Amino acid sequence: MSLVGAGPGDPELLTVRAVDRLRRADLVLYDALVEEQLLDLAPKAKRFFVGKRAGRHSIEQAAIERLMIRAAKRGARVVRLKCGDPFVLGRGGEEALALEAAGVAYEVVPGLSSAIAAPALAGIPVTHRGLASGFAVVSGHAASAYGSAIDSIAPGALTLVILMGLRTRAELAQRLLARGWSAATPTAILVGASHQGESRWLGTLGELATAELDTELPGIIVVGDVVKLAKQPKQIEHRLEEKTS
Amino acid sequence: MSLVGAGPGDPELLTVRAVDRLRRADLVLYDALVEEQLLDLAPKAKRFFVGKRAGRHSIEQAAIERLMIRAAKRGARVVRLKCGDPFVLGRGGEEALALEAAGVAYEVVPGLSSAIAAPALAGIPVTHRGLASGFAVVSGHAASAYGSAIDSIAPGALTLVILMGLRTRAELAQRLLARGWSAATPTAILVGASHQGESRWLGTLGELATAELDTELPGIIVVGDVVKLAKQPKQIEHRLEEKTS
Repeated sequence: MSLVGAGPGDPELLTVRAVDRLRRADLVLYDALVEEQLLDLAPKAKRFFVGKRAGRHSIEQAAIERLMIRAAKRGARVVRLKCGDPFVLGRGGEEALALEAAGVAYEVVPGLSSAIAAPALAGIPVTHRGLASGFAVVSGHAASAYGSAIDSIAPGALTLVILMGLRTRAELAQRLLARGWSAATPTAILVGASHQGESRWLGTLGELATAELDTELPGIIVVGDVVKLAKQPKQIEHRLEEKTS
Repeated sequence: MSLVGAGPGDPELLTVRAVDRLRRADLVLYDALVEEQLLDLAPKAKRFFVGKRAGRHSIEQAAIERLMIRAAKRGARVVRLKCGDPFVLGRGGEEALALEAAGVAYEVVPGLSSAIAAPALAGIPVTHRGLASGFAVVSGHAASAYGSAIDSIAPGALTLVILMGLRTRAELAQRLLARGWSAATPTAILVGASHQGESRWLGTLGELATAELDTELPGIIVVGDVVKLAKQPKQIEHRLEEKTS
């Protein structure tokens, strides 16, 4: 039984170990944002969608855990494929504890978290000498979560990466401004990094509340001076074309 | 020209894209902590060590950048192989800017940062419902860096991951305690994750200053309630053996 991080979406950004586990899997339990291309790497496997999407109905966490445990106990090679890294805001820790409690042997295969990879793919280093010597990753999803987490970071010292915060961006912006962050802080919204339909918005924290997005894809928000180093998608494509294959 | 993240050390934790770039490389510029096994994935390439180690003499950053630029301009397929992720406390951002300034086309291939992967491999989720809804990653290397970054995080709300802080752990512990972190906060030192010679120390923040380590390998410090979920290495090995290949 393997808890596997799927990374940000592009199959080339899977780890070698993740590809191996998919290739040999009998059953893959996957989330809403895992792309078809990744599932094609598991030709022998039954695929079971256990996705969650903000505001939509989804299978219960306990049901996912029961499914994993039952299949693993039957002797199936089970891959629980989770977006990004299984242990970054993905309830992977809960699933690991459930497996342990059930006496199921398992491994964790870390994946690229979009918290770091999505900014990198947009040319934004989450740390950069003279701009930020550290970064924080928080959830924008639940009030209880960002209430304490966001308020616990003093304005400006760290790059702030907010996952699952697009829908609450107006409230998040307001909260950070009230906390003392400068309205001029460079801010990016990165949607669907390494997916088809990737897009990005660049502005300031003061503009975040009214940023218009024409997407249903999830995305991340990056707040901090490092956002000044962001590249426009065209610059990056251009660079890759120039690069001799 | 590719700035490639080497991940925590195990070749299976490279991304598929990183393996591809190594396979086709003419020149690999690599850091001190990159293992031989990874370099063997680049059979055609000249290897050039540009490593840095705490307290030891190393090639200047500007010289590394000149080397990359000169080789890329000659038409060589250059891989700059950096431990972990190139944009997490690794000066990757500076190298990217140097390449841009020189007009060299390049790409960034994100890698697994040990900030997330090392805890995961030790059974520690950096976030976990009820324990931590976010995490912060800071450098323990330079006084200027951790001065502002560590002080900017309120005690206890986030999991704190400190990279390059083993040598300064006594000072770091003192600083966190003075900032108001509880001496009872579970704390781990994770050395050489996924490398041969991996080891870990588990204790509390109050004990961190006097933690004894018999290693020269680098490691990370994790401070927060999620450390309670850490597994002893034997538990993890046992689990992997049980798992039918």
